[in-house]
Amino acid sequence: MRARIDFNCDLGEGLDAWEPGVPGPESALLDAVTSANVACGFHAGDERVMAAVCRAAAERDVAVGAQVSYRDREGFGRRFLDVPADVLRADVTEQLVTLGRVAREAGTRVAYVKPHGALYNAVVHHEEQARALVDAVAAWVGGAGTSVDDAPFPLVGLPGAVSLALAHERGLRTVAEAFADRGYGPDGTLVPRTQDGALVVDPEAVVARVLTMVRDRQVVAVDGTVVPVDAESVCVHSDTPGATVLAAAVRRALDDADVHVRPFV
Amino acid sequence: MRARIDFNCDLGEGLDAWEPGVPGPESALLDAVTSANVACGFHAGDERVMAAVCRAAAERDVAVGAQVSYRDREGFGRRFLDVPADVLRADVTEQLVTLGRVAREAGTRVAYVKPHGALYNAVVHHEEQARALVDAVAAWVGGAGTSVDDAPFPLVGLPGAVSLALAHERGLRTVAEAFADRGYGPDGTLVPRTQDGALVVDPEAVVARVLTMVRDRQVVAVDGTVVPVDAESVCVHSDTPGATVLAAAVRRALDDADVHVRPFV
Amino acid sequence: MRARIDFNCDLGEGLDAWEPGVPGPESALLDAVTSANVACGFHAGDERVMAAVCRAAAERDVAVGAQVSYRDREGFGRRFLDVPADVLRADVTEQLVTLGRVAREAGTRVAYVKPHGALYNAVVHHEEQARALVDAVAAWVGGAGTSVDDAPFPLVGLPGAVSLALAHERGLRTVAEAFADRGYGPDGTLVPRTQDGALVVDPEAVVARVLTMVRDRQVVAVDGTVVPVDAESVCVHSDTPGATVLAAAVRRALDDADVHVRPFV
Amino acid sequence: MRARIDFNCDLGEGLDAWEPGVPGPESALLDAVTSANVACGFHAGDERVMAAVCRAAAERDVAVGAQVSYRDREGFGRRFLDVPADVLRADVTEQLVTLGRVAREAGTRVAYVKPHGALYNAVVHHEEQARALVDAVAAWVGGAGTSVDDAPFPLVGLPGAVSLALAHERGLRTVAEAFADRGYGPDGTLVPRTQDGALVVDPEAVVARVLTMVRDRQVVAVDGTVVPVDAESVCVHSDTPGATVLAAAVRRALDDADVHVRPFV
Repeated sequence: MRARIDFNCDLGEGLDAWEPGVPGPESALLDAVTSANVACGFHAGDERVMAAVCRAAAERDVAVGAQVSYRDREGFGRRFLDVPADVLRADVTEQLVTLGRVAREAGTRVAYVKPHGALYNAVVHHEEQARALVDAVAAWVGGAGTSVDDAPFPLVGLPGAVSLALAHERGLRTVAEAFADRGYGPDGTLVPRTQDGALVVDPEAVVARVLTMVRDRQVVAVDGTVVPVDAESVCVHSDTPGATVLAAAVRRALDDADVHVRPFV
Repeated sequence: MRARIDFNCDLGEGLDAWEPGVPGPESALLDAVTSANVACGFHAGDERVMAAVCRAAAERDVAVGAQVSYRDREGFGRRFLDVPADVLRADVTEQLVTLGRVAREAGTRVAYVKPHGALYNAVVHHEEQARALVDAVAAWVGGAGTSVDDAPFPLVGLPGAVSLALAHERGLRTVAEAFADRGYGPDGTLVPRTQDGALVVDPEAVVARVLTMVRDRQVVAVDGTVVPVDAESVCVHSDTPGATVLAAAVRRALDDADVHVRPFV
Repeated sequence: MRARIDFNCDLGEGLDAWEPGVPGPESALLDAVTSANVACGFHAGDERVMAAVCRAAAERDVAVGAQVSYRDREGFGRRFLDVPADVLRADVTEQLVTLGRVAREAGTRVAYVKPHGALYNAVVHHEEQARALVDAVAAWVGGAGTSVDDAPFPLVGLPGAVSLALAHERGLRTVAEAFADRGYGPDGTLVPRTQDGALVVDPEAVVARVLTMVRDRQVVAVDGTVVPVDAESVCVHSDTPGATVLAAAVRRALDDADVHVRPFV
Repeated sequence: MRARIDFNCDLGEGLDAWEPGVPGPESALLDAVTSANVACGFHAGDERVMAAVCRAAAERDVAVGAQVSYRDREGFGRRFLDVPADVLRADVTEQLVTLGRVAREAGTRVAYVKPHGALYNAVVHHEEQARALVDAVAAWVGGAGTSVDDAPFPLVGLPGAVSLALAHERGLRTVAEAFADRGYGPDGTLVPRTQDGALVVDPEAVVARVLTMVRDRQVVAVDGTVVPVDAESVCVHSDTPGATVLAAAVRRALDDADVHVRPFV
């Protein structure tokens, strides 16, 4: 059977990344991926950027995801904020409503949610915040959030995250992802960014890893152990050095290997 | 005579770009350039990042410059702010003092100033803000700003900028720069980012342009005109797609062409 | 005929101003006014605060207005931002949509729009930004913005502001306001904050001025000239020293003078 | 023996609070207090405001304190940030250096440190952050921080705070403070802002409490218990409703009661 994978990347994080009529810095990434995690204004971006990314994604049949964040432009959403659950829920809702409206106007829709930065990491284990996130997504979907069929709405996260377990309970779809450019430990967790082997930036190495992830559902950990990986999507971080080159190389390799690269939605 | 050029890039703009002991996203850029424009906390960065970049720059004999900005982390310093002259002067001073202290502790010093983003563009023509910038730099240098010999302290800017004229009057050194990854019009100005030809992202094209800039002191404008370029430094924007690849290619080409690539200071 | 006036004040600008169950700092202001200009998250506030203010306003039959701002929490919306018209329009829309949703959930609705800080001042004369503001309001009202009858939707501003002229052209209702705590020049404009007489903080003086404004539709300028004032609403700034005391004194005096104090909507 | 107390308040939190030549909103507070906690730009303020407050404080012989904060203008320093110790230490140092320089230029000096908002609360119990704060203060004082005699440099905090214990170990002076406008529990801790009795806003009640605090070193808790209070300084929060009125009333009452109201330094 033909292997299949989604390929996602963060987009819309620069205020001036999308000038009208100009092939901006991010269009190269959009050409490579199948799912675009769009910043919703709380850690970066604004509506003009959201609209530009949504339009460009729609032209390419790239799925649009809401990359929701803490309210922290100052820290680019990279700082854990101990916000009360009701505030977090409201903040997530505001981002979903805003991107939802912008996406509709751009001829597409918000097809999934993936938290950004510190919030992404928090909802792996922080049950209260994970619940606030899931509550916001579920309520928004239950309202007029998305215009799509009745399929469960997807939340993207780290395999094993509390957020995914809670999302599953609420009837949402859970999508686990793997990282093309991050090292893995022998227990299947990511090597912390403070340790050697945290980042993989050599294009050949990244390509080889992704092919193994997709075809063999495995990754070689930093100590040589072979670790199982079960992911519906692969992520390249847009701030990894040479991200545009990496993303293009990954996409080409997947296509050449006859992997079916398409959105998970 | 052997051609000579400085090569500069923005650094220190990510909160987590420099983890202890990890080859971070920005180290590839530092390996290529000779001058690092370091964010001073007003549009990005903090002291830990500043310190990491300064230490890494010191190890590589890369010159450290203060990339001063409006107080605008929310807008990443990309929005023109109509701040009064005394506020701007004080804001610039705070950034110089902070990076100066951090650089000293890291075993280096602030060797030049280059404004960031909207401020960079404003001081090309906005005399009041240009004067506030120059006043802050001159006063800081006249104090205990830098520990270096008595050579005039450099301010980097666009050729023809009002800031450079004012800096010259005040006895500062002025350093004009050219852009490896930006298109030029027939009058020698940059093609606005909203127009076709604003960005040059193909590595071969970028390399060819830089070699022409450095050896022939010329650039081919978007309409084919050959335009003179007089610059002591060449800049690659760190947010241009594939910046790390571009920077490495440019450096290699310059070295191969036996250009003397070294800081202007 | 019984004189009539609306009394407005800024609210919801503190993250912790509205704790559940506690008579917070702002409730004293809400007890005095008839219209509450609620911060929409772009210069201050968040959804929890918006919800608390809306609920408290609903209990008191105080009208809720959207106090829209530039995206500038760092500068508290007090800095002029030269944002493009499409960005400003989108930013205003996001704030209207957000507060609109929160207000509905709190059992009330957004009854008017009043820009905040630097945006308020800009749309007095900056035609492009005024138009962007009016476009956003008109489009939002034309959509599902407000649940009210077919009466024209009000925009509050300085008498003579370009924004009001444009709003009138678009079929919106325009509401001019006067300031209880600001000095007026002989030409009817406000004394700039940098000059003597800019602020009036003595409660007796403020009360006397407001009564003259409301009953005689006049104000005594700093040079003694009597100037006509034509306003449907009077504003006390919440950051004027002693604002709560001023507001309470003004309200008591208006009630004692048998002025009909009620929202203009 | 004549009772003695310091009276402190937060100042410099508004960008436009101090216009040249205008009796601004904050001058009324400065007329009442003996110590001004000045915002250092990380949660509010900028150098122009700092300079204005320092000059106005110097004219009135009011002591200037550095109100250091997390880097969080977006949240006004009211959100707990789990920053690493080295980042926090660097952030505090930057604020001390900046205000120190501004104060010197304004003819005064930084006489004490009092953390702001969420940081104030964190260092009551968070040992790592408390240590980072104390380290920054001690290192700055040991450098060229302050120009004063050899007396230990004061850190202000809540009685019993870990920060004060650590400061004492490091040879700093510790100054415990009481709150004029906050309710106390029977165990001497503050009533949480989420509970009834958290705030005391009636001027007569506030005045009575302060007199009891200063003369009898006691306060009546929300349940009627009489609790001992041992404080060298009393604080009125500048965002308590009617703060200017409260502060003036407190000062008048203290003077009338022949309490010696003066800075603790």
